[in-house]
Amino acid sequence: MTLEINAERLMESLFAMAAIGGTEKGGCNRQALTDLDIQGRILLGEWCAALGLGLSFDAVGNMFARLDGLDPTLPPLVIGSHLDTQPTGGKYDGVLGVLAGLEVLRVLHEKGIQPSRSIEVAIWMNEEGSRFAPAMMGSGVFSEMLNLDDVRAVADKDGITVGAELDRFQYALCPHPTAKTIHAYLELHIEQGPVLEAEDKPIGVVTGAQGIRWYDVTITGQEAHAGPTPMSLRRDPMEVVPDLVRGVLKIGKIDEDARATIGQLHANPSSRNVIPASIDLTVDLRHPDEQVLEKMHKQLHTLINRVKKKVARVEVEIDQIWHSPVVSFDDALIAAIRAGTEAHGLNHCDIVSGAGHDALMVARKVSTGMIFIPCKDGISHNEIEHAEPAHIAAGANVLLSATLDLLDL
Amino acid sequence: MTLEINAERLMESLFAMAAIGGTEKGGCNRQALTDLDIQGRILLGEWCAALGLGLSFDAVGNMFARLDGLDPTLPPLVIGSHLDTQPTGGKYDGVLGVLAGLEVLRVLHEKGIQPSRSIEVAIWMNEEGSRFAPAMMGSGVFSEMLNLDDVRAVADKDGITVGAELDRFQYALCPHPTAKTIHAYLELHIEQGPVLEAEDKPIGVVTGAQGIRWYDVTITGQEAHAGPTPMSLRRDPMEVVPDLVRGVLKIGKIDEDARATIGQLHANPSSRNVIPASIDLTVDLRHPDEQVLEKMHKQLHTLINRVKKKVARVEVEIDQIWHSPVVSFDDALIAAIRAGTEAHGLNHCDIVSGAGHDALMVARKVSTGMIFIPCKDGISHNEIEHAEPAHIAAGANVLLSATLDLLDL
Repeated sequence: MTLEINAERLMESLFAMAAIGGTEKGGCNRQALTDLDIQGRILLGEWCAALGLGLSFDAVGNMFARLDGLDPTLPPLVIGSHLDTQPTGGKYDGVLGVLAGLEVLRVLHEKGIQPSRSIEVAIWMNEEGSRFAPAMMGSGVFSEMLNLDDVRAVADKDGITVGAELDRFQYALCPHPTAKTIHAYLELHIEQGPVLEAEDKPIGVVTGAQGIRWYDVTITGQEAHAGPTPMSLRRDPMEVVPDLVRGVLKIGKIDEDARATIGQLHANPSSRNVIPASIDLTVDLRHPDEQVLEKMHKQLHTLINRVKKKVARVEVEIDQIWHSPVVSFDDALIAAIRAGTEAHGLNHCDIVSGAGHDALMVARKVSTGMIFIPCKDGISHNEIEHAEPAHIAAGANVLLSATLDLLDL
Repeated sequence: MTLEINAERLMESLFAMAAIGGTEKGGCNRQALTDLDIQGRILLGEWCAALGLGLSFDAVGNMFARLDGLDPTLPPLVIGSHLDTQPTGGKYDGVLGVLAGLEVLRVLHEKGIQPSRSIEVAIWMNEEGSRFAPAMMGSGVFSEMLNLDDVRAVADKDGITVGAELDRFQYALCPHPTAKTIHAYLELHIEQGPVLEAEDKPIGVVTGAQGIRWYDVTITGQEAHAGPTPMSLRRDPMEVVPDLVRGVLKIGKIDEDARATIGQLHANPSSRNVIPASIDLTVDLRHPDEQVLEKMHKQLHTLINRVKKKVARVEVEIDQIWHSPVVSFDDALIAAIRAGTEAHGLNHCDIVSGAGHDALMVARKVSTGMIFIPCKDGISHNEIEHAEPAHIAAGANVLLSATLDLLDL
């Protein structure tokens, strides 16, 4: 079956939701578990009620809107994303995935189609992680990657905890979140990167997510006065910086899919007439192939050993502080998304997610597929975040097609 | 005439002075214009009174202890340094120069020698600049490098101004500081660097001070997410860092006397999974020869242009924010110091001051000479600052010899 979403209705929903927490610059500030976040959920709830959908919640504040299937005992197909935004966020990040899910249910409702199994639209709590860290909190607890008690104890900058907010909005009274047997999970999201735009493709078929390794590197020398200390007597940690930075960036060029980033670089004590005592820097390595990521990891350690040997007067230490393995999405769901793309005659390419998404958490427990559409200049987490209406319609149509496909409709 | 200072008496004075503001770790905290600083001056005043010296002050809090010459109308020879310390300072930085000056007067007093012209020991106000910035405040106003009203308006972190403290201790009632015609100026100081220790020389004959140029450099790229953004689409300011850092350090190796320091280096916004929007760094270039310093300055600009051309995707801007020209001490005073060193059979070498000293200010108006002695591991501005008693005695003996020489004794 090939159906079309109502693009105008979807855009209206997006703008109506964006008005809740809307900013002067056209963005959105609707942070997790604030009154505005709840206002957004209430608006969504009203739209769901108009379709006769059942609403449910769990104890971490995830929200589910359910269209019952012919056999409501069958595990549901879940479509989801998040409604919370960054403090200076845009109108599309997360919201698009939720409202496109609702649009799918609206089309089915309009056509009087009751699928064999139930469909749920999931709104995951606190994907952004800006008010409460870490990110992907609701989907993380749901997928047993995070612990509910730990998450409840997290406080925002004013000392208000997740737990206090979950109590205030009575989510705490709801059942413990669980990756109850669900059939599959689909998510539509803006890319938050520049690849689709550069390739001029309206649809990215997401095959999985990069594996990530994070490192802290410290170079230690000897603090000394910039004037009296001859260059030959210095133990200047800066001497290691050229080879180290060049080497890290080169590791990121091992192939097209690799990424290497030095996001933090800081000399201590940071006085212009003092030779630094030490320099701290971070390394972020990413690759969609776990074996290549392992190779990059080894290259980094070889690099560290090489610079240590070359500049023996300073110490270089490296510490891996995090490793998030590669996520591979389900072949059947990837195929369903690709088929949907072709059914609508949409240009597409495979893509690997570079950013974090609820789908990456859910994928640890459930067969998962994900669809990307381009966003302007790859810019996200910014009030000027923009997605073209034609791309939004294309993404929602692919989501609808994949849903119908997975429900054998 | 060859006389010897009383090394034991000088050490006793140093330790007695160090007890005022003495710290648990054996250092000293006697910051400018604090009650402790004044206590130190009172102790010094008592020692001066015992020698029958006349005390005078000026409106910026400089203090002078005077041994009248046979012809008190002749311009005096001034020996000086400072009594204020860093918050976690040592026992020798500054104090040595003042107390060695006093020891010279004690020897003359003991021997019943009245020189032809007067000798004054100067205690310059706030050399350290730690409580009130900038450093070398008293000698700066004295030498007309700083303005008294500007200096009076400077506040410490608690909002207390220099002016309020000068009023409180009634220095404000004293005459405006002036580089009144003085014959010459001598200063003994610890090196605050590692050169003399490395060369195993008890005495450094200071020929002048390095010229200094300070620069701010900003590299601007495009902030982006470390995951989705392919290496080839990045505008990563980090790409400029290897060539720039290597190039700056190389400029410091143009010859043995050159110095190049990157004291501050910071990536913004400093998030480990964000490609930096920009990187700020400082460059400090020094050389004792103004022409070579000019050459280094040109090399730095050539380097900036080269890296800009190589990595066209990022912007690199450089701004020179300060230029302190080379200071050359007086040949006659250098000769007198060198002769004193030889009279006492002391190993010595010429040296250029890398740190700031009151003598560098005074030298703008008055024939000036300066003597360095080693300090352990080159460490200063630290409670573990240490100078060997033998080196202290050597330095004071050279100061005495140079004084006698300049007074034709």
